[in-house]
Amino acid sequence: MYSFKNDYSENAHPSILQKLMDMGMEQNNGYGMDAHCERAKQLIQTYIQCEEASIHFLPGGTITNLTAISHILKPYEAVISSNTGHINIHECGAIEATGHKVLTPPSDDGKLTPELIAPILDAHEDEFFVHPACVYISNPTEVGTIYTKSELERLYTYCKEHDLLLFLDGARLPMALGAPECQLEMKDFKDLTDILFIGGTKVGALFGEALVIFRKELQARFRFSMKRSGSMLAKGWLLGVQFEQLFSDGLYFELGKHADRTAMLLKKGMAEAGISFLTDSPTNQQFPILPNKLKARIEEKYSISDWSKPDEDHTCVRFCTSWATKEEDVLLFLEDLKQMIASL
Amino acid sequence: MYSFKNDYSENAHPSILQKLMDMGMEQNNGYGMDAHCERAKQLIQTYIQCEEASIHFLPGGTITNLTAISHILKPYEAVISSNTGHINIHECGAIEATGHKVLTPPSDDGKLTPELIAPILDAHEDEFFVHPACVYISNPTEVGTIYTKSELERLYTYCKEHDLLLFLDGARLPMALGAPECQLEMKDFKDLTDILFIGGTKVGALFGEALVIFRKELQARFRFSMKRSGSMLAKGWLLGVQFEQLFSDGLYFELGKHADRTAMLLKKGMAEAGISFLTDSPTNQQFPILPNKLKARIEEKYSISDWSKPDEDHTCVRFCTSWATKEEDVLLFLEDLKQMIASL
Amino acid sequence: MYSFKNDYSENAHPSILQKLMDMGMEQNNGYGMDAHCERAKQLIQTYIQCEEASIHFLPGGTITNLTAISHILKPYEAVISSNTGHINIHECGAIEATGHKVLTPPSDDGKLTPELIAPILDAHEDEFFVHPACVYISNPTEVGTIYTKSELERLYTYCKEHDLLLFLDGARLPMALGAPECQLEMKDFKDLTDILFIGGTKVGALFGEALVIFRKELQARFRFSMKRSGSMLAKGWLLGVQFEQLFSDGLYFELGKHADRTAMLLKKGMAEAGISFLTDSPTNQQFPILPNKLKARIEEKYSISDWSKPDEDHTCVRFCTSWATKEEDVLLFLEDLKQMIASL
Amino acid sequence: MYSFKNDYSENAHPSILQKLMDMGMEQNNGYGMDAHCERAKQLIQTYIQCEEASIHFLPGGTITNLTAISHILKPYEAVISSNTGHINIHECGAIEATGHKVLTPPSDDGKLTPELIAPILDAHEDEFFVHPACVYISNPTEVGTIYTKSELERLYTYCKEHDLLLFLDGARLPMALGAPECQLEMKDFKDLTDILFIGGTKVGALFGEALVIFRKELQARFRFSMKRSGSMLAKGWLLGVQFEQLFSDGLYFELGKHADRTAMLLKKGMAEAGISFLTDSPTNQQFPILPNKLKARIEEKYSISDWSKPDEDHTCVRFCTSWATKEEDVLLFLEDLKQMIASL
Repeated sequence: MYSFKNDYSENAHPSILQKLMDMGMEQNNGYGMDAHCERAKQLIQTYIQCEEASIHFLPGGTITNLTAISHILKPYEAVISSNTGHINIHECGAIEATGHKVLTPPSDDGKLTPELIAPILDAHEDEFFVHPACVYISNPTEVGTIYTKSELERLYTYCKEHDLLLFLDGARLPMALGAPECQLEMKDFKDLTDILFIGGTKVGALFGEALVIFRKELQARFRFSMKRSGSMLAKGWLLGVQFEQLFSDGLYFELGKHADRTAMLLKKGMAEAGISFLTDSPTNQQFPILPNKLKARIEEKYSISDWSKPDEDHTCVRFCTSWATKEEDVLLFLEDLKQMIASL
Repeated sequence: MYSFKNDYSENAHPSILQKLMDMGMEQNNGYGMDAHCERAKQLIQTYIQCEEASIHFLPGGTITNLTAISHILKPYEAVISSNTGHINIHECGAIEATGHKVLTPPSDDGKLTPELIAPILDAHEDEFFVHPACVYISNPTEVGTIYTKSELERLYTYCKEHDLLLFLDGARLPMALGAPECQLEMKDFKDLTDILFIGGTKVGALFGEALVIFRKELQARFRFSMKRSGSMLAKGWLLGVQFEQLFSDGLYFELGKHADRTAMLLKKGMAEAGISFLTDSPTNQQFPILPNKLKARIEEKYSISDWSKPDEDHTCVRFCTSWATKEEDVLLFLEDLKQMIASL
Repeated sequence: MYSFKNDYSENAHPSILQKLMDMGMEQNNGYGMDAHCERAKQLIQTYIQCEEASIHFLPGGTITNLTAISHILKPYEAVISSNTGHINIHECGAIEATGHKVLTPPSDDGKLTPELIAPILDAHEDEFFVHPACVYISNPTEVGTIYTKSELERLYTYCKEHDLLLFLDGARLPMALGAPECQLEMKDFKDLTDILFIGGTKVGALFGEALVIFRKELQARFRFSMKRSGSMLAKGWLLGVQFEQLFSDGLYFELGKHADRTAMLLKKGMAEAGISFLTDSPTNQQFPILPNKLKARIEEKYSISDWSKPDEDHTCVRFCTSWATKEEDVLLFLEDLKQMIASL
Repeated sequence: MYSFKNDYSENAHPSILQKLMDMGMEQNNGYGMDAHCERAKQLIQTYIQCEEASIHFLPGGTITNLTAISHILKPYEAVISSNTGHINIHECGAIEATGHKVLTPPSDDGKLTPELIAPILDAHEDEFFVHPACVYISNPTEVGTIYTKSELERLYTYCKEHDLLLFLDGARLPMALGAPECQLEMKDFKDLTDILFIGGTKVGALFGEALVIFRKELQARFRFSMKRSGSMLAKGWLLGVQFEQLFSDGLYFELGKHADRTAMLLKKGMAEAGISFLTDSPTNQQFPILPNKLKARIEEKYSISDWSKPDEDHTCVRFCTSWATKEEDVLLFLEDLKQMIASL
């Protein structure tokens, strides 16, 4: 059974494992106060080009989101997210658990725009309502779509005009950057977001995420918030080592591009087989809408995940490629697909 | 500079790294629903011998404590901990962040007894006070001391008589079990605790802890609490693999014993050099009380941590050995120590 | 300026003030452990006819909602409310502040049905989502509509089949009961809800609400939850006295009916003047949709509140009558209205 | 049975009830945005003499404490309170319920000093510990003692030097001010505290407290925090009316002095009868240590409360006088006491 279920089913990139092996019994300080974390931060700095920024390493996505968002919000403040946002539907209420409401304008393509946010601001006018103070977006979104540079510029300008912080969840950041139409580079984020989450778990790390806080006024005592949420790893150097490797020689971006490339191959092949998609995703998550019979046939040999039920006879599913997906595996699947369709 | 600072400054045990290397590009289900976690649970079961128990893997100690304790308490309930307890003084208020008070009887040796708990229960008699519902202990304690089997039996009997759950934080569990006077075995805990935290981070894992919930009524929807606190790792198999290895061929217990053995060597040597200790610790944490001048000399070559200030001229420090500490390193240090003392 | 702004702009019913005057310097126990609270509970019991029920008095609506809902939910559980529900849009995130998500199916008339709840349950299938455990409804709703007895029977049956608790916010309960089509009586609620909030603030009390917990398993240590949320009044007898008076000689229900009657007069008059309404409300809140010019004219002499903006030229506003509204005031307004319309 | 149990067992001061009666059916805006609240604030201003201050009215003591403290603290910050502090032992963990730890230096007389706070600051040095950011004191304290002007000056100076906010819980404020040695006046608090709680419940109001926030930077969106905690009363004018009356013609201070005077009479009489006290309290709470037999005899005719158990044969109890206690009642009790002692 081959899995297209997600981008975290495989091991770490071999160079990361090798680096761990090479460390031997080297001793390091605990809690991220070690030389590996230091070097990893310096490497990330060469990309984001923002000396003011503070950088932290956390073990996973949900805890990065909840630690960062609860750190920057006052008790009565709320965060705005697309209804499809990870913090809204995939984290078991982790944000609400920190005391904050998630306000969710409905979005067709998983993206937020000034037009979607404005009615929320209009409706939340006084103390009977929570006070919207932060906008959460993911790039790519949970449905594979991306924010281009000009879209992000427009959104950030709106946020600044309306006193909203912009938090970008980049759990799959290099898959967005790898899409040709995206036009964003790492050095753009200091001018287009306030906090940036640079994902490792879904991009070839064993686990772990980097969080970049661009604004001085949001940085104070973030390590307290990390300790309090249980996101400060004793062996913090373990995260440093991984990001050191990911940000050496552009490996991180290459892994993202690879995942996108194999997804484009998959998308093209499925489209040619007459299959339509929920969204026009240029990234490593694809959402084909399958006749239920075909879906059942595919699942005999491949792991995929259910996404939604557009009608009785069809199911929208998610195919996910990863940094580790081989082109030949995709081609093999497409070959299989043709035969399955033919034999239906 | 050699570090006796803690037991998480070194890499993972080589056999764990090797196991990760050997996995190659094997694909696994996410979120701990994989074959490695399954096997790791079975291996732990052979030790704890409690079929009813449910077992979970979490990334670190603080998040294990906060997820478990907030899962089992009702909103108005509180947890009792020694004043030296990890949840009281080393987790930046992580338990309070989940809405619960930590009640802290003062303890000289880091341990709780019925005698220390009784006044707390007496004082918390009605709705003006929080309701004590859980007792948190660590074994070994934060000051290196241990609960013996008979002490734990007495404490657990008291807890049951007073409707208190007993949670045992075993971040360094095999170091307690490895002490000859302890007399506890893994199979005892099902009858002597309600929830057991089996530590990995401080016992040769890259990171990660196992949580055993013995009581059926505490098990329901624990995975919801994990997801909500951000402690459910996407690549959950990574924790399974490590515990699979740790619980193969008794490695886990061997590593604990090794840490204790090197600590006993250290303790004996320091005592012979005329140094006294804060506590009589049979485990891998030792708390010598050093003249400030000697401490300064030691710190030129060795990393240690400050613990407390018994008087102007002395400092109590912590020496920590680990699964990776070599006997020769301890002997080398003791040799150094003699010379330092002589030359003061 | 006469106010139709809400049903809490006037003093308490004169008989309540008189009762306070008559008390003189009588001494009472604190925290609701007094004879007045006791008698008020007995009087409420004669109506609800449920000996198992426990009854508590709290100072206001938001704190009653948050105390009750946080008392009955486990940390990872969520409450379902209509998108127009008071807990969703009028309490500044008070429920989320206790750590719980509010799930909000969109409702045209402010009411929930099995059909609206079912998709929520379908979507919240595992630990990646919060677990829906409670349904919150208000009767009458925030847009004046009511649940009839048969509607509530259908909803409660559905809730029981799906393991959902049903909480009924009756801040304006007698205004629902007073509507002829409602068909509900106080003695029905023990079989049709799990927790019932009987409002005082909006029904002629100085302030205060009664909370009835019908189910034994939800009652344990509710006074702890009250103390913890700050909703246990030191002079708790003050709430007892008011509910004693409200539930003597059916005063409570008479006050609700009076508010409805004056609202029906208002509604009929406005409809005759050609004005249409957002909802067909049989209770004391009416939501006429006014041409902006007419609205401006009205606001020169009357206080009302804005509700929504159906289009550029119209505004939906709320007119609220109360236990204290005089028929002659409504008739005077209707006379004014005619002239305002004529002179537009 | 006459009650010396507390200072909230009697009705409101007659002039407050009369004022409510006189209001008739006057209509007022909701949520504290009315003319009575406005006038009450102006009257309070004439005493505190701080134009920058913002003033709010809340329904009770615990909710005032939790709303204010959670408003001013960042998530990882803690509040320091005497171990006898109301927030520590009498509010069922209400502060922890908002996510914050209460740090409690042990105090013999219920008061905090720089000497008691300093070790707390020393021990909380980095992110492994919560960050102490606020000091909570009550004046008079829970054991009847008071802070004099010079003591408060010294404490506030220390707080400012150490970046700590000072919150003064004045649930019984005029009883402190009424003690001759106190030397504090209302106009002093703007220079000696950051937030001041001016109690009404225990000083002749039906219920309700005023909160004064002196510092601009702590004032922003406090009404959001009130709404969120459920402490914003719909009929907010009800609190305004009461404080309007209390702060007219110095009534508030006269009521406090009266309570103190009757307590001094009680104290003198008991001392003359050979009874000793837990603390030397100059205010309306007295803590005599009674032989158990005498206590039992007293409780046949008088309600009092248990405080602590100094030894097997004695109990420390609390006698509380109030604004409503008559001198003749105290004299009658002292007469009784003599006879009880004689007949033991």
